[in-house]
Amino acid sequence: MAEKKRILSGMRPTGPLHLGNLHGALANWIEMQDQYDCFFFIADWHALTSDYEDTGSISNYTREVITDWLSAGLSPEKSTLFVQSRIKEHAELFLLLSMITPVPWLERNPTYKEQILQIANKDLSTFGFLGYPVLQAADIIIYKANGVPVGVDQVPHVEITREIARRFNYLYGTTVFPEPEAILTESSKILGMDRRKMSKSYNNAIFLSDTPENVSSKVFQMITDPQRKRKTDPGDPKVCNVFEFHQLYSDPETIADVSGKCRSADIGCVACKKIMAGHLIRFLEPIREKRAYYEAHPDVVTDIMNTGSAKARGVAQQTMEEVRAAIRI
Amino acid sequence: MAEKKRILSGMRPTGPLHLGNLHGALANWIEMQDQYDCFFFIADWHALTSDYEDTGSISNYTREVITDWLSAGLSPEKSTLFVQSRIKEHAELFLLLSMITPVPWLERNPTYKEQILQIANKDLSTFGFLGYPVLQAADIIIYKANGVPVGVDQVPHVEITREIARRFNYLYGTTVFPEPEAILTESSKILGMDRRKMSKSYNNAIFLSDTPENVSSKVFQMITDPQRKRKTDPGDPKVCNVFEFHQLYSDPETIADVSGKCRSADIGCVACKKIMAGHLIRFLEPIREKRAYYEAHPDVVTDIMNTGSAKARGVAQQTMEEVRAAIRI
Repeated sequence: MAEKKRILSGMRPTGPLHLGNLHGALANWIEMQDQYDCFFFIADWHALTSDYEDTGSISNYTREVITDWLSAGLSPEKSTLFVQSRIKEHAELFLLLSMITPVPWLERNPTYKEQILQIANKDLSTFGFLGYPVLQAADIIIYKANGVPVGVDQVPHVEITREIARRFNYLYGTTVFPEPEAILTESSKILGMDRRKMSKSYNNAIFLSDTPENVSSKVFQMITDPQRKRKTDPGDPKVCNVFEFHQLYSDPETIADVSGKCRSADIGCVACKKIMAGHLIRFLEPIREKRAYYEAHPDVVTDIMNTGSAKARGVAQQTMEEVRAAIRI
Repeated sequence: MAEKKRILSGMRPTGPLHLGNLHGALANWIEMQDQYDCFFFIADWHALTSDYEDTGSISNYTREVITDWLSAGLSPEKSTLFVQSRIKEHAELFLLLSMITPVPWLERNPTYKEQILQIANKDLSTFGFLGYPVLQAADIIIYKANGVPVGVDQVPHVEITREIARRFNYLYGTTVFPEPEAILTESSKILGMDRRKMSKSYNNAIFLSDTPENVSSKVFQMITDPQRKRKTDPGDPKVCNVFEFHQLYSDPETIADVSGKCRSADIGCVACKKIMAGHLIRFLEPIREKRAYYEAHPDVVTDIMNTGSAKARGVAQQTMEEVRAAIRI
């Protein structure tokens, strides 16, 4: 039996997960579980790079996100699910890699330049924010991951990780770190109720943990074809966000039906939203059911976090022995 | 009984210690042992900031420097002697402090600017070199040190540590970290054989571990009054490096004697050096004897490193519990 390749990815615990997180990453992770040896982690130290002034929710969100993962279908039997800050070896490797990482590599990082400009309400000119690609590199290579599932905008991060791994191997005459590949994943970009990118901070998100009532009320607020002013005006599904949702959650028959009736003004937006909301609620039902189970059994979640973190720590400790031997420190 | 104040200081393991290290720092540490609760550490991770390309000697030098400390009079009964890289909590605190430390604080650091310019043969434009004051801050405050014995040139480093401690306390509404004071220590600046600053890299140093033969031969090479060309010329002890050494190692009678006879050309430089070398060799004799003991008993040194590191780790772990509680991560 050929050994499975190892992949690793993480999420910051900045809030409960929404449909954008599900279709943007989590759904891919769930699919990859059989094909790969998967390590998925809560990047709670990374949450500090931007939220160091407001850390009160990080540990709650850590548990929330793990619960969302489990509810959506990540399996602790198949994958190693763990919490970054419990594996102190990440910090040790971060420190060691910082010694060999040129500052210009970090200053060139496109996300760094972008975020410093865009996020005006937080002071991001910190040493830790500059160095988050170094921490990310440590996160990835400490598990000798062969691949990192990412969207196309994150490819430069994987590239910095590859450069740091290569430089370490070169400087210390070793092959301890494989260079991880970026695994480009197909992801549906799902928009929020206001047609901007779905994001907790835009307050336009539908969460995996939303109740049916919440889902209905959020769907009701969704912006449809802006040109369709009255119910008697024909609509254009191609520019309608609700129709995008239909394509994800409704059956082909419904999709064809609402598409046709929208164009012929035979269905109004309210009715169309009701149909879609019904399908979305049905889609979320099994996730909500599993969530209810985990919420009723917090010890199970605690156990999963402990077991996964212990397993990750074992791998990380083994790698660090090799790292210290290579540096001879 | 009033509790003793805690102080902390460290040395990089970049080579065996010489007279410059002894009179510049170590002699002060030895004196402080009764007055303070002393933590002294081998800064092996710091050695990587400048020597990441050549790490082969770090672990040998770690043991050498500890042996020099013990031989010169640091006592494992009085002080906690430990190795930085064995206390992984330093790396964790470094990571956490990096999140709250503004990059401009580090770019302003005078040593940073100076060394980038001066040390042309090493590439110091690394993230770790930029951040070494953050690691230094972690080293100090993780033990809640009240004071740091430093020379005047290192006061800015202690100032950055105080600023980082203050910022942490402010951001997380805590008092976990005291702000350490710089304890300015009197230190005799001792010059090397060539009258430049004594330094291993200038190849002008007399080591604590030098044999009597080595000491004699190095003293013989020392530059004296450059104006005194012949033995019959009168000399000026005020500009003579050998006379500086007499003042440290010879008795008052000898000092008065050679000073007078130099000015009247009644003693030549070779004879004067022989007298000084004798006193220096006698001064180093008890250090050499203790060194011989520790070299013959490597397990004793290993035990001292283990015991000191275990004690330091206990303190560091306790502090990190408080740190994590303050950040709530």
